[in-house]
This record gives sequence, C-alpha cells and structure tokens, in this order.
Amino acid sequence: MSNESQELGVTESKSHRPGEWYAEVVQKAGLADYAPMGGFIVTKPRGYALWERLQDALDGWFKETGVDNVYFPMFIPESFLEREKDIVEGFDPEVAWVTHGGHDELEERLAVRPTSESIIAPFMAEWTRSHRDLPLRLNQWCSVVRWEATETKPFFRTKEFMWQEGHTAHATDEEAWAEVWTRLGQYERVYEEVLAIPVLRGKKPEHDKFPGADTTTTVEALMPDGKSVQGGTSHHLGQSFAEAFDITFVDENEDVQTAHTTSWGLSWRALGALIMTHSDDQGLVLPPTIAPTQVVIVPIWQEDTKDDVLAYAEAVAEELEAAGVRVDLDDRDERNPGFKFNEHELNGVPVRIEIGPNEAADDEVTLVHRPDNAKTVEPREGVAETVDEHLEAVYDKLYTAAETNLEENIRTADSPEEIMGTIGQHGGYVAVPWCGDPACEEVIKEKVAAEIVMQPLAEDGSEGEPKAPEDDDATCVICGEPATEIAYFAKSY
Amino acid sequence: MSNESQELGVTESKSHRPGEWYAEVVQKAGLADYAPMGGFIVTKPRGYALWERLQDALDGWFKETGVDNVYFPMFIPESFLEREKDIVEGFDPEVAWVTHGGHDELEERLAVRPTSESIIAPFMAEWTRSHRDLPLRLNQWCSVVRWEATETKPFFRTKEFMWQEGHTAHATDEEAWAEVWTRLGQYERVYEEVLAIPVLRGKKPEHDKFPGADTTTTVEALMPDGKSVQGGTSHHLGQSFAEAFDITFVDENEDVQTAHTTSWGLSWRALGALIMTHSDDQGLVLPPTIAPTQVVIVPIWQEDTKDDVLAYAEAVAEELEAAGVRVDLDDRDERNPGFKFNEHELNGVPVRIEIGPNEAADDEVTLVHRPDNAKTVEPREGVAETVDEHLEAVYDKLYTAAETNLEENIRTADSPEEIMGTIGQHGGYVAVPWCGDPACEEVIKEKVAAEIVMQPLAEDGSEGEPKAPEDDDATCVICGEPATEIAYFAKSY
Repeated sequence: MSNESQELGVTESKSHRPGEWYAEVVQKAGLADYAPMGGFIVTKPRGYALWERLQDALDGWFKETGVDNVYFPMFIPESFLEREKDIVEGFDPEVAWVTHGGHDELEERLAVRPTSESIIAPFMAEWTRSHRDLPLRLNQWCSVVRWEATETKPFFRTKEFMWQEGHTAHATDEEAWAEVWTRLGQYERVYEEVLAIPVLRGKKPEHDKFPGADTTTTVEALMPDGKSVQGGTSHHLGQSFAEAFDITFVDENEDVQTAHTTSWGLSWRALGALIMTHSDDQGLVLPPTIAPTQVVIVPIWQEDTKDDVLAYAEAVAEELEAAGVRVDLDDRDERNPGFKFNEHELNGVPVRIEIGPNEAADDEVTLVHRPDNAKTVEPREGVAETVDEHLEAVYDKLYTAAETNLEENIRTADSPEEIMGTIGQHGGYVAVPWCGDPACEEVIKEKVAAEIVMQPLAEDGSEGEPKAPEDDDATCVICGEPATEIAYFAKSY
Repeated sequence: MSNESQELGVTESKSHRPGEWYAEVVQKAGLADYAPMGGFIVTKPRGYALWERLQDALDGWFKETGVDNVYFPMFIPESFLEREKDIVEGFDPEVAWVTHGGHDELEERLAVRPTSESIIAPFMAEWTRSHRDLPLRLNQWCSVVRWEATETKPFFRTKEFMWQEGHTAHATDEEAWAEVWTRLGQYERVYEEVLAIPVLRGKKPEHDKFPGADTTTTVEALMPDGKSVQGGTSHHLGQSFAEAFDITFVDENEDVQTAHTTSWGLSWRALGALIMTHSDDQGLVLPPTIAPTQVVIVPIWQEDTKDDVLAYAEAVAEELEAAGVRVDLDDRDERNPGFKFNEHELNGVPVRIEIGPNEAADDEVTLVHRPDNAKTVEPREGVAETVDEHLEAVYDKLYTAAETNLEENIRTADSPEEIMGTIGQHGGYVAVPWCGDPACEEVIKEKVAAEIVMQPLAEDGSEGEPKAPEDDDATCVICGEPATEIAYFAKSY
C-alpha cells in the first residue's frame, strides 16, 4: 500500500477493537475531529450533513403534529436551576458555569444549559392562562453542555452535544401520555425509517428516570458489539415542573388547574448509533435514506475511450439527478478508478455505478452495493427506476442485518451468574423477571458493568406500566422475591 | 375598547415613540419575550418561524455556491483567542467566560464564542494541505455571545444572538475577493427578495473594520426612523488569520503558500430590520415571502348562513393550499370577525380574505391587503392565481415604500453643521467628500451620535476601493483637506 492509501483506509478491525475502529471511521470518513479542549468535537461537513438530514425528517414530523420551534437563551441563572430540586441534584455536578461577562464578575452565576426545563417552564407558566392555550408544544434544536469526566467518543459522548429538546404542557394526564407516545413513536420511526436501525420501545427503571420525571420512556438500539444505545427519551414529567414553576390554567368551569408536562429529546448520539451499526472495516456504511450522496458514478476509461465513456456517464448522471437521486459523477483526472472505489467505500456511498467502454457499448451499467460488494449488470434503459430498486435493496440489507443482530441477542437467564455469563459471552440483552429493587441491579452492575437499560411495556402500557412476567409466580432471578416486572440487562454506551 | 382588545392591540405610536412601539410590536405579535437575565430574549414560535424562513433561503443559496455546513464547539480556549491580536483586543471586553465545569475550576478559561475565527482557523490549517483542498468554504448556524452593556432591543441588540458565520480559505487574493462579493450579494438578495428591504452596498471605513480584517463590506438598510442598520457584513481577512494560524498549502509548483481567508455573517438583526421597516400602529406587517401565514380566511356568518359560508370558505382554503399558498381558515366560534381582523392585523398576515353570505352567493371573495387595508372584490374562479397576484402586489407596496424612504433620505452637505443639522432634522444618510481621517468623523460623532456607517464602492471596486468624489478637487467637508473618498454619515442601530 502506498502511504496515501494507508492514510486513506481504515486500519482497525470492527470485531476486534470496536472502540478504536469507530474512532478511526469517524475521522477518516470526514465526519468529525477532536477539538483542542478534551471532551469536545468539531463536526465536519459530512458529519453535519447527516445531522441535517435527520433533523429535516424529525422536524417535519414535529411540525405536522403541532410542535412549534422556539429558541431560549443558552444560559440559565443558578436560582432558576435550583427551583426544581431533582434537576439541580441531577445536573449540578455536570454544569459549566459562566462567572464573568467581559471584565466583570457576574452577580449570579449562569449555567450553560444542560437541558432547558428550568428556563422554559417559567415561560410556559406565563403563556398558559386558559385551557385554550393548551396543549402548548415547544421544541428547540440546539446544543447543551454536560461536564462529564468520562472518555470522549464522538457523537456518543461529548461535553457539548447537539440535540432537540421538546417541552409540552397539557390539560390532562391522559393528553400528556398521548404526547409521550407520539414523540417516542417518532423517535422509533426515525431509527427504523431513516437510520435503518430497529429499536426496542420501553421504559427506564424507576431509579434511572430523568431528574424530575414521573416516567422516562426510551427507544434502545443494539449495537453489533453487543452494547445498547439509549436512542432517544420521552419523559412524562407529571406535575412536578408545573408545580415548581406554577404552570396553571383556568379550565372550562373557571377552576384553576395545574398542567401536566412532558419533555423529550434526541441527540446526535443517533449518528453514533448509525455509524456503529452499519459500518465495516472498509469504512462508513450509510443507508441511502440519510446518505448525502446516494450514488457515485465512476467512469473507467483509457485515453481512446475517454470521450465516449464520459459522455455516457454524464447522461446517466443527468437522468438520475432529474429523477431526484443524490448522485455524484467522479470524473477526476488525477485519480484512478481503484483509488476512487476505496474513497467512496470509505465515505459510505450506498451504490457505485461503474461505467467503462463495455457498459457504454452495450447500453448497460454496472451497479455495486456498498454493504456487501454485490455487483449487478443492468440495462441502461430505465436506469433511474433500477437505481431506486437497488437503493431500496441496500436499505433492506442494512435493516435486516441490524434486525437479525437484535433478534438473536435477546436472551433469558435463570440466575445472576447466568445474566453475567451471557452478557460476558454474547453481549446483547438478557431479559429477566425482576422484583423492582435497585439493589438487585447493583449486584450485576458491580460485577460486569451491565445494568437495566430498558423495561418492555405492558400490552396496555398506556401509562408506562411495565410488562409483568408471564408466570404469575415468577420470582426475581437475583434475589428470589416475587417478580412483578421484566427487566432487560445490557451493557450500554 | 374592552380590556381584551386593549391587551391585544398596539398602543404606542411608530412615528412618535419608535423604540417603545417596536418593543410593543415584538411582544404583542408574539415574536419574542424578555428573558430573566438582562440582555437576553426568548424567541417565540412566530419569531422563530421568521428566522427559519430566512435561514432556508440563505442556506439554500450558500449550498448552491459551494458552502458546507459544519459545527464547531461553542467554547474557545483563552489561549486560542489570544493568537490573533486584533480579535482578542476587539472582543475581550465582551467575552462571557466559563471558569468552572461541575464543581471544579478549569485550568484554562473558556470563552463562549463571540465569533469563531479563533477556533475554526486552526482546523482550516489542518484541512488545507494542497491547492486541491481550496477553496474551503465552511458555515455554521449558531448563536454567539457578546457581553455588551447597552440597552437590549430584541433582535437588534441582545447579549446572545443567532447568526450564521461563514469562514473560507482561498489560494489567491482574487478568489478571496470573489468570495466576499458572492456573500455580500447573497445578503443583498435576502434583504431585497425575502425581506422586501432595499439596501446600500459598501464598505466600512478603515477604522471601523472587523477586528483582524483587511476590508469589511456591508449592506446597510435605512429604517423609517432615519437610522441605518448594518444588515450583514462580509470581510476580506487578507492573510492575517492565515499567518496567525498557519493556514498554508502546497501550490501546483510544490511551493508552500499562505492562504487568503474571508468571513461573513448575518444575524437575526435582519428580523429587527424587517419588523421595524414594514410594521405600523396596528402591529406587525410582513411581506408574503417570509410570512408564516400568507393568507387568512375569515368567514362571516349568521346562524342561518353558517353552513353555506363555512363550506364555501373551506373550499377556497383547500384550493389555495393545493396551490401552495400558506393559508389559514379562522373558523373559531368563540371570536367575532372584528376580533379576528384585529388579531391577524397585529400578527402581520399579508392578505385577509373575507367570506360572508354575499361572497358565497355571488361566487366572489373579498381581499384586504394588510399594509394599507386596500379592499377588492374578486371572482371565486381562479382564486389561487388572483391571490398570487395580490401577494405580489403586497410585496411591491412594501418594497416600494422602503425604497422611497431610502431614495428620499440620501442627502449631501457642505459643512459639518449641515451634516449635523440634516441628520438631526431628517435622519437618513448624508453623503460627503471625506479626507479619510477618523478625527473628522469624531467631530460629528461627539455632537449628534452619527458616524460613517458606509462608504460606497468605486465603479470597479473589486478590491473594496471606495468611490472617490466626482470633483477631483473636492475637499473634506469637515477639515477642508483634500478628499479622496465619499462617506455616508448616519445614526445607526
């Protein structure tokens, strides 16, 4: 290998050193770089383009379902943060504090928002007077800062991260629940329809809820290395924030009522899950739904065939572009086809079209799928439709692989030792009957760093009730006490 | 007036108390509220929708012209800020400093970005190796913080404000100039085609450039109260940042060269200009290009005509929506038509369609233009096309009024007293020959708080050369020395 292709290619192995491999893919595929301050990253054009596409999808669905975008200040006065006690306890250790403006010390410290309930809730209180003002559904796309000490992993774990945070107020508990499910459903949809990742819907155990929440619901995605990613969370906040910030309204009978609020967020961790799930030792792999470039055409010519091949390739590119395909024609002179193949593989272009003198002469195109290198020769006629089918086929391959990984990695266990052994050997989820006591989780957590990441919901879990074990006499596999819930143990990002 | 309509309506007068009137329109039309910390605002749904629409337009043009979006950390280490001396001198007094993360004091203070040259330039240096890596064109949509002590004016002057900042690197000075003009042209276009505001293109005087820039170009908009708004700036940074941060590249001849860089930014001050320019004592006025709702249909019924009127109005609404018009049907039962008229006027809906029993019976619609209440009865047939024409007419009315204001308010003067007298009496711009010495500006600035906001460019001002006075023997109207440039004095926001 030349120096140049060494520099270009991924050298780490996904199966042997997933952490190092991930970091290499992120950097070499041009998604992000590390910032000079520990814990921060710089999101490069190809990385940001993924975020924009995800944003477009989710933002469209939010707007279709009654959500308005807003923007609140990035700073929260310390006294506001202190008004909801769980929030301050939960986030205080992680807050970045602004203490000086210009040359002057501030009278009151300002928190760089770790989440915005404490600055949004007072305004929800002001804007909510009558039942006619409800539901109130606000969302903002922004970044937040949490000063975590753990190691940086681009998109998965950074001190500043981009996300959206939705904040809503409702007249009734029932409406707040409906909101929680609408947003969780949209998170599920963005994973399944945009990122090609199947997810599990459930709730977090009571002791692992969002600070101040009544119930935290979650979508969890299983990575190929056996760890679970919390893909997005939708919180029923009950009336705790409404009481702390006085979000009340006058109902139809002229009585003053306290509102029920929710909040929900999805961060660029979704991009981490995307990269981790589909990519391989050749680099990034992207589903066509989110790939900035869906198809790259690589013309292959000798001096005497160059004009014909290029003209043919250009016509194909134009036809695809007219049909709405995001297509690039890579007609660079200074690079040979082999170099181009490697580069586009590294960058995760879902479908490559090779066009040489043979294709041009025979009115054909050669299509290669990024995930498995499957190669097909197809007629030139109707190429836009053919390419659409191939893009769908690539999507299906990626989704199916992720689905198989998920389905094959939900296991059960009959003892704490078996939970630990199974997670140690296979990773994935281990579903067990659980008594509900956090002490039982601790037993596992201490030994193998796995925890309860999710609890499936009861069939009519419309208020977040966890699913009960099928056997009425089931006992907690850890302590032997009666088990009322099912818990999914896993290691997590 | 009932209490409710008093609360709804604007009480201040644009011509008598423009500052108070502006603040009232912003709040009552639901664009923004004041945050609890002085100097910050909360951008409400209707205000944010305007920003999103402006963003869509500008972002699309950026992408069509080779710009990639990125995201850099919101914090900049103090040592990075210090690497370009003009930047640190220019912004140091206005920086908000993060000194603590969680419970620990940071080893190095972090600036909340006042502008991002100092964090982006080092990465441009890393990403720019060969001439093939140029031009490099990056942009980010984000907020920045500048700790100014002056009074808060929503969108015009806030400690945190939203903007986009573009940062580019080029192989030659000429290419950097081309970039400066491309972006200034796009700012001009967004004002003229989206905000319905004509602007003047020019440069800032040398002593009022962006810190570290060779030349700062600007588009300036004249408000109805006679003050100028700096609408957006595009800076040629020369090689000062490239030298400070080592942005070099290997050219075609294998020689190492230093790049030429630019930066350019447009903030939500553009929304301030939009609101200030067109609105009136009834509230917000918006051009249809940016109005979230372009047309509101208000049905007017009695009990016996309700069904017919509503059915007719719904059909009109559907037809307009199908034609791509952003239309709302205000069929609220609990409000009478008069209340609705006032509310939609306050919120700046460009065209109102009134539909009563007469319109329904005669197959007609009544259209009312927001800016001047002009009322027309039009046939129901072809309503979508008719509405399009009316939306264009509203746009033209607004643009023409702003254009007239601009054209009528560029004056000349033969003495410092006349500059001051003219600005005092009429506001607007006073164009005079100027020697180029900032001391002459001071004379005016001290007495009437007007300054040189802009200098028109020479006919071939492709490198930012200011226009010279037509008379070769012209002298500076302030000091009497030979004048080489023309300067536009004005008060400014």
